[in-house]
Amino acid sequence: MTKSMQYETVALDDDGDALVILDQTKLPGEVVSLRLTRQEDIRRAIRLLQVRGAPAIGAAAACGLYLAAKSIDADDYDAFYERLKAAKDALAATRPTAVNLFRALDRMENVASAHREQALPRIKTLLRDEAIRILEEDAAVCRAIGEHGLGLLRDGDGILTHCNAGYLATTRYGTALAPIHLGLERGYRFKLFVDETRPLLQGARLTAFELCAAGAEPTLICDNMAACVMKSGRVQAVLVGCDRLAANGDACNKIGTLGVAILAKHYGIPFYVCVPTSTFDPRAATGDDIPIEQRAPEEITEMWYEKRMAPRGVRVYNPAFDVTDHELITGIVTEHGVLRPPYGESIRRVMRDGGA
Amino acid sequence: MTKSMQYETVALDDDGDALVILDQTKLPGEVVSLRLTRQEDIRRAIRLLQVRGAPAIGAAAACGLYLAAKSIDADDYDAFYERLKAAKDALAATRPTAVNLFRALDRMENVASAHREQALPRIKTLLRDEAIRILEEDAAVCRAIGEHGLGLLRDGDGILTHCNAGYLATTRYGTALAPIHLGLERGYRFKLFVDETRPLLQGARLTAFELCAAGAEPTLICDNMAACVMKSGRVQAVLVGCDRLAANGDACNKIGTLGVAILAKHYGIPFYVCVPTSTFDPRAATGDDIPIEQRAPEEITEMWYEKRMAPRGVRVYNPAFDVTDHELITGIVTEHGVLRPPYGESIRRVMRDGGA
Repeated sequence: MTKSMQYETVALDDDGDALVILDQTKLPGEVVSLRLTRQEDIRRAIRLLQVRGAPAIGAAAACGLYLAAKSIDADDYDAFYERLKAAKDALAATRPTAVNLFRALDRMENVASAHREQALPRIKTLLRDEAIRILEEDAAVCRAIGEHGLGLLRDGDGILTHCNAGYLATTRYGTALAPIHLGLERGYRFKLFVDETRPLLQGARLTAFELCAAGAEPTLICDNMAACVMKSGRVQAVLVGCDRLAANGDACNKIGTLGVAILAKHYGIPFYVCVPTSTFDPRAATGDDIPIEQRAPEEITEMWYEKRMAPRGVRVYNPAFDVTDHELITGIVTEHGVLRPPYGESIRRVMRDGGA
Repeated sequence: MTKSMQYETVALDDDGDALVILDQTKLPGEVVSLRLTRQEDIRRAIRLLQVRGAPAIGAAAACGLYLAAKSIDADDYDAFYERLKAAKDALAATRPTAVNLFRALDRMENVASAHREQALPRIKTLLRDEAIRILEEDAAVCRAIGEHGLGLLRDGDGILTHCNAGYLATTRYGTALAPIHLGLERGYRFKLFVDETRPLLQGARLTAFELCAAGAEPTLICDNMAACVMKSGRVQAVLVGCDRLAANGDACNKIGTLGVAILAKHYGIPFYVCVPTSTFDPRAATGDDIPIEQRAPEEITEMWYEKRMAPRGVRVYNPAFDVTDHELITGIVTEHGVLRPPYGESIRRVMRDGGA
């Protein structure tokens, strides 16, 4: 496998006719691209996590909404807008937690509204440009996060990560994995520990795949092994992504992140949340204001929906995310730099000035 | 299902001809008893976790060694002892961490040594009696642990447990689950949270099964959800078992226990280790002296050995146990009462006097 090989997570095809995604439910066994044109297929891909990760969901939804717009056959802007809005609302209903989904869709809607006086074909072109801009911005933002994050690490560090916040969750580089990918490109040797991340095993299936493909040699552990790996002194930093960041710095991310943060605090290990400012939600004052998606019990009771591993009738609690309290976070790594506590202030400043 | 139904985990059959165990690798899908007579089958059952849990392993090994003794056709004690010792060493080599295995085998060997002047048939009878005594003592000890543990709980409490330290890990009642089984018998209503316990899912497969069969309504969670359940205020106590307890109170138990203890400390939730004194190892000064079994990578990379869920070639770290530092333990619940810090002293006292 080529060193530093990256697959394409989400893209518009060259003709702007289809959303192309890497089907993440098939990884690591099969590397399969899906070419989606129909709205129901795009929504289904987001709902079933064929495309997942906050930035990737946002980019996929933007492309999806452009494809919806392109297919609208309307006589005037109002009729066009009504159908665009319906398509937007349907895309927004696919998953509740990652704010990038709503942000990207709002950006698309705003482009249409701002150019309502233009001819519909022109508006459609502008929507395509905006979707591509969202894709390209994400890649640039992730690279900047990588640069700032890499500044926090030393060659040889042991780094633990949870879930997948790599390029498979974005358009390039990733968020939490961006410093690692950049470091690998520059010859850093990290000791990487990957939480398998139950129930859907994004760590085992996606992060381990992505890091192996990049030429790293990650060590896969079960989520419940993080404490003993930290206790053994092998972890110098924890890097995680984020699906929505509240105004006070509370970070909503994949279920299990909170526990990792508490363990890191116990062992005095710095815990960094790597996140584009597009994932900040100033309307959420704290983590309590972030809706947490509850998913199907079968994700836990059945091994990948194939074999029952728990008694029939057992109750199941299956939140897809949890909130890591801002007090547990050492630094928030954004494209504009590393934010430090008190986060209420540093977040306000970066949202206002764009610089940390 | 009958309220408070308990299956038999480990027993000698009525004629003393076979070890009878409930095959725990088949649960929860099938309830299958195995009737084992050959030494290699008994050793295999322990190694493959068809019987597991520190007290149950000890009892099964004692029965196994009796069956080995019974089949020895020797002319004198020395020839008999040589073969008994070989069978003992082979049983002792099945798993390294739970001390009950070595304790039970030592007790059996001591019975033979102490009666070396007797006729071999008489020694064999004494070995059968000792194996049965180990089984019966374990049931009584577990019930006493249940009584002492129940005194720490209130009706309506939310209780979180990790792995399986129930009757499926012992001969009756269990250790960590003994207070819960006793409480259920007496009409307590607990809110029970069961960590699924990766990689082998003893929580999902065994604890959830055992508690459902007992008429409880446990809620199954992934290991990485414990933090957010605790944060929500729904857990008033954590109860876990123990595979070996060091002289300073460090508790070696199923991988993930350490993490749960750190989370409980963070949220101010009492964390109790429920353990018979037969699991105490005074020769281990601290947890560092306890050997930790490393198991096959496939337990993590493949879902129950059936479907690959991680990329080929990924490194895997798969310790079966971790050590919870004594500072994280609120109380150690034994058959003689609840030990409190400083554990060095309270453990010495209970080992000397048998009373806490």
